[in-house]
Amino acid sequence: MQNRRAICLLSGGLDSAVALAVARRDGYECFALSVRYGQRHSVELECAALVARALGAARHQIIDLDLSAFGGSSLLSGGADVPKGRDVATGAEGIPSTYVPARNTVFLALALGWAEAAGADAIYLGVNAVDYSGYPDCRPEYLEAFFQLGRLATRRGVEGSPVRLEAPLLRLTKAEIIRLGLDLGVDFGLTSSCYDPSADGRPCGTCDSCSIRTRGFAAIGLRDPRLGP
Amino acid sequence: MQNRRAICLLSGGLDSAVALAVARRDGYECFALSVRYGQRHSVELECAALVARALGAARHQIIDLDLSAFGGSSLLSGGADVPKGRDVATGAEGIPSTYVPARNTVFLALALGWAEAAGADAIYLGVNAVDYSGYPDCRPEYLEAFFQLGRLATRRGVEGSPVRLEAPLLRLTKAEIIRLGLDLGVDFGLTSSCYDPSADGRPCGTCDSCSIRTRGFAAIGLRDPRLGP
Repeated sequence: MQNRRAICLLSGGLDSAVALAVARRDGYECFALSVRYGQRHSVELECAALVARALGAARHQIIDLDLSAFGGSSLLSGGADVPKGRDVATGAEGIPSTYVPARNTVFLALALGWAEAAGADAIYLGVNAVDYSGYPDCRPEYLEAFFQLGRLATRRGVEGSPVRLEAPLLRLTKAEIIRLGLDLGVDFGLTSSCYDPSADGRPCGTCDSCSIRTRGFAAIGLRDPRLGP
Repeated sequence: MQNRRAICLLSGGLDSAVALAVARRDGYECFALSVRYGQRHSVELECAALVARALGAARHQIIDLDLSAFGGSSLLSGGADVPKGRDVATGAEGIPSTYVPARNTVFLALALGWAEAAGADAIYLGVNAVDYSGYPDCRPEYLEAFFQLGRLATRRGVEGSPVRLEAPLLRLTKAEIIRLGLDLGVDFGLTSSCYDPSADGRPCGTCDSCSIRTRGFAAIGLRDPRLGP
């Protein structure tokens, strides 16, 4: 019997690596999808390739799509500076400048297209609505709206078997995500979460994403392997 | 006072040219958006540039995004042959092989991102649910679902002023679209609708898109200027 197939959005960060590991655990043949979108932290794409191989993805596709042509985010090449030292514990500071307009919508649209073309049943993604940066397109109601859109947008949907969205990390804390990943054999030393790494890929340690990651490891008494020995 | 701004999806075909003309009539400063997605009919992108200039778009951006990496459509380079001679009058033949999985979702997602980054109020697009090829992502319920998604996906939506979708041709016949375009000064000789043109850009005359276009001009007693004198 042929394995069921899933498209797995894979940024090269911590969360999407765990989501891919969950898809593998769930028995899927995994097609991993990454996007070179003009991010200043493009070292994450090298990490994505390593993670895809380590976790046994059947394919890994990197799509080129230069969102920096539109601008509007500090996360993009040529954008403003990435904010540092924000209080990520409270989430009270609103949508930050690192928000890339409609990024998850673009990525999910690409994943939906590949799912339909490749006959995949599901899209796995590592979005999280607990320990996150406050982006609007990481919320459960957003994912439900995208599922409804996909139902109407595709041949599969019209024929009654819409592509499912699987967001297994949605309601986990960062510490719980790290524990789950360790249980599934994820090597977090291969992943990069920093929004503003140095040229050789070392994390800045103070952007939102670094802060959230550091707190997650600390909460379970571990040191982030990405930080070296 | 600064003009309101709209993103206008512009394929280089007949419908999107009229949609852009409507956006201009409605008083918008227009940012035209085209995508080089691996279509075999890439001559339409040259047409899009001519149309954007002729209709006074303030900017025209062509985004490179190779959807042929996913496959799954006869409209893409390397895909199966484009079907010819289908009965487009009845629409009874279901979703054709020229359907590109999730194409409108990808294009709308890109337009949504640019709209948010550029402060545009609306996205204009030339989709039509009357004389069309039977694609699921051209239906009114699909557009409504995308609007709802955009409301949840974006900073603008969260702040209560979501990007509107304007599909002024949705319920017009092809003949009505052509009349509207002529009233608004669209030069249809600049547009290309064919799914499978010759290397020098001449339409095949028998694909779905050519058939629908030819019937539209015939219905109002005109000859398609694209066909030459």
